[in-house]
Amino acid sequence: MSGDCDFGLIGLAVMGENLALNVESRGYKVAVYNRTTSKVDDLINGRAAGKNFVGTHSIEEFVKSVKRPRKLMMLVKAGPAVDAIIEQLLPHCEPGDIIIDGGNEYFEHTERRVKQVEEAGLLYVGCGVSGGEEGALKGPSLMPGGSADAWPHIKEMFQSIAAKVGPNDDIPCCEWLGSGGAGNYVKMVHNGIEYGDMQLICEAYQLLSELGGLSNEELYDVFEQWNDGELQSYLIEITRDIFSVKDDQGGDGFLVDKILDVAGAKGTGKWMSQLALDLGVPSTLVTTAVFARGLSAQKEARVRASEKLNGPAAASNPELQAIAKSLAGNKAELVEAVRQALYASKIVSYAQGFVQLQAASAEHGWGLDYGAAALLWRGGCIIRAQFLDRIKEAFDEDPNLENLLLNKYFEDAVENCQEKWRKVVALASVMGIPVPAFSTALCYYDGYRMARLPANLLQAQRDYFGAHTYQRTDKEGTFHTEWLDLRKAPKA
Amino acid sequence: MSGDCDFGLIGLAVMGENLALNVESRGYKVAVYNRTTSKVDDLINGRAAGKNFVGTHSIEEFVKSVKRPRKLMMLVKAGPAVDAIIEQLLPHCEPGDIIIDGGNEYFEHTERRVKQVEEAGLLYVGCGVSGGEEGALKGPSLMPGGSADAWPHIKEMFQSIAAKVGPNDDIPCCEWLGSGGAGNYVKMVHNGIEYGDMQLICEAYQLLSELGGLSNEELYDVFEQWNDGELQSYLIEITRDIFSVKDDQGGDGFLVDKILDVAGAKGTGKWMSQLALDLGVPSTLVTTAVFARGLSAQKEARVRASEKLNGPAAASNPELQAIAKSLAGNKAELVEAVRQALYASKIVSYAQGFVQLQAASAEHGWGLDYGAAALLWRGGCIIRAQFLDRIKEAFDEDPNLENLLLNKYFEDAVENCQEKWRKVVALASVMGIPVPAFSTALCYYDGYRMARLPANLLQAQRDYFGAHTYQRTDKEGTFHTEWLDLRKAPKA
Repeated sequence: MSGDCDFGLIGLAVMGENLALNVESRGYKVAVYNRTTSKVDDLINGRAAGKNFVGTHSIEEFVKSVKRPRKLMMLVKAGPAVDAIIEQLLPHCEPGDIIIDGGNEYFEHTERRVKQVEEAGLLYVGCGVSGGEEGALKGPSLMPGGSADAWPHIKEMFQSIAAKVGPNDDIPCCEWLGSGGAGNYVKMVHNGIEYGDMQLICEAYQLLSELGGLSNEELYDVFEQWNDGELQSYLIEITRDIFSVKDDQGGDGFLVDKILDVAGAKGTGKWMSQLALDLGVPSTLVTTAVFARGLSAQKEARVRASEKLNGPAAASNPELQAIAKSLAGNKAELVEAVRQALYASKIVSYAQGFVQLQAASAEHGWGLDYGAAALLWRGGCIIRAQFLDRIKEAFDEDPNLENLLLNKYFEDAVENCQEKWRKVVALASVMGIPVPAFSTALCYYDGYRMARLPANLLQAQRDYFGAHTYQRTDKEGTFHTEWLDLRKAPKA
Repeated sequence: MSGDCDFGLIGLAVMGENLALNVESRGYKVAVYNRTTSKVDDLINGRAAGKNFVGTHSIEEFVKSVKRPRKLMMLVKAGPAVDAIIEQLLPHCEPGDIIIDGGNEYFEHTERRVKQVEEAGLLYVGCGVSGGEEGALKGPSLMPGGSADAWPHIKEMFQSIAAKVGPNDDIPCCEWLGSGGAGNYVKMVHNGIEYGDMQLICEAYQLLSELGGLSNEELYDVFEQWNDGELQSYLIEITRDIFSVKDDQGGDGFLVDKILDVAGAKGTGKWMSQLALDLGVPSTLVTTAVFARGLSAQKEARVRASEKLNGPAAASNPELQAIAKSLAGNKAELVEAVRQALYASKIVSYAQGFVQLQAASAEHGWGLDYGAAALLWRGGCIIRAQFLDRIKEAFDEDPNLENLLLNKYFEDAVENCQEKWRKVVALASVMGIPVPAFSTALCYYDGYRMARLPANLLQAQRDYFGAHTYQRTDKEGTFHTEWLDLRKAPKA
């Protein structure tokens, strides 16, 4: 027995409610269910009143009210709650039905559930959803992956509710990404890149305010100007806005100056960093951003340290002053140099994110579509930016592009920025302003473009103390040397 | 029934054999066992011939040959093999017997086994062993933790076989560290610090050879000179040696120049990085070192990139040249500047390692003895260095020292180095030499000594797009702002 709903949604917190309303608004009939069933009635009698909804009060009623093959989506807390709902759904579902998880789930859980649900004769999709409450209602970025057979059934609906981009606002930010946990992984990398973008903006802010002496009003103008160019993005736009907001608790001045400098985090940046370490790929931007949040959280320790540890004595050292002066120049020059440092670092950050996606896809056999990932980040989500059009184009030109930095557009962009980027990192180092993300990005660029790194010495050390062996540049094979026997006799 | 052996050792690979020989050489009678029992006979008839050994051919015979409370140590592959041996030992052991794992085990496995073995009425020790084959035979650094009641029983024996340091060579590199997996964790941090030390030395090498143009002979002299001062350590010493070794495969020139620049890794650095991310403590040096090894391993990708991506046009840019010149000076100045950068970065690396130990000890309730950790790294192990005497003194002065950088000695050391350290990072940035560890160390120092970081902006962003809330500097509580409503209206 099946009903006439086109779609079912479980979990009526704000995200779920908004997504259900979004689906209904595109002409679909939607069944809803929630464990606390009063939330069902609240929705039906409230925001959904007069709309094409069916409220249900049991899992069985919920499942039966949807047309086959059923599209049943959960928006509940990631983890065991998802497993519990799958267990409840399975006895009532029929072959070919599609279970969709829209939560911020760790990809390995989705890998496991795809197998489990497919073994039961159904299909399973792990779909990253970005854009917050507003996005869920009006058009999120959707990142689906899992059972490939599900895609033809959900494509039209999912693309209809997704954010739209392009000159005619008709390109949906929703494409099939790949098998298994590909969708969740892409969402995680999205979030990791978001960490990097935010850290880079914070470093620019600190340089401009502390070294350049820019006021909040001036910072507003700088970010407004940046938002008109290569850096145009949602995060630059809201940063601009932030610099215009006055204290809303009755104090003088701007709200941003009253906020405690202790950053929170919800864990996806950490996941991405830990998985990069597992894969052996250097995703240094996200990791640096996670560590920077960690250091910010040690507020009291920092306050104590600030009373003991001195910065550079630039004021009393003519040589350092001369360097700073030659690097900083005037305010407008500093602003432009920081802009270029930010842009180049951002390119490196995205390059690293895609390298990690490629390594993960190869490891897990997802057949991930990188161009699709770039496409669906263009709208609806936090990292949305003009910039992503260029990334999409880069992967259109070469779907197997091994590193964004090797695409002509980005190669040239970094080339054009590098002189100022280097100066900004040098200036910050000399002046004592921490720019961990700017400098790790530069170190990655310089390391990546080195045909030869000093790891030959490291391999010699490992072979010396641990007989770990090494390879040679001129011969095949694995070598070990008895270094102690061959070394020059040290002084007595 | 029990025999008259003082100690039993399972697992006769080189490390196990050498450790057994070391124990016997201190006047103890040693029982040995190995799954492939021919190895037992080989040892008894070979290196152990005429010595105070008992070869056994079954687990039961092995256990029964040792005096109660038995000290039974495994040196086998970490992981399931350890669990399998515990299962085999338990039926033959008696209350109070002590099972010791000397492998490079992940600390959580030891946490679990301590509980399991204590529930069976026995004691369990996870003991990090550092120093390689040579150290196992002549005097390793030993890092025991686990069931505290075991320590009085094994202390004398373990301290007798450990490396000795101090003016009279009578201070053993073996102290009790704490409960649970404390010993394995300290060993892991040792290895992570080793990663950092090696990466820092490699960066110094690249700067001196590429920017300073130093030959291997000159590098030998530099490292010899460094080994006479603050940097004195085993790793500096073997680096010196490496620069003296000629190609041993018949080629011209030095061996180090023939070694492929692709670094291997065995995973403990990765563990430490991932656990730092879990703890939220910024152990950026080890993580940077792990990522640098990862980048080195992408040799073919780097060669391809090197053909496309350009470095700084310093040669054609008078301003960059001027900066480089003012920073680099002459060869001797560069060597001294790099030495100071290395020393300051090394201090930061150790500071981070101890911060991570403190966070882990607090999280797991180990009551870790930090001075003991510093003490037992002074000899026998890879990171052994004069420098560790100072760390030991710092924790003697203040057992709860929250960060090494706040100890007067290290505070002054970094203060004295910071001008040159900053110049080296600036120089490398401008000249296109990647120094990820030098610069992440500097960023940590500058971030840690900042009472105020730009994370206030980051919190504003998170509240703007995700309603994540924030705290204020001037009021208690948690705040949320409707930024969109309060922002300055943007241009149309």
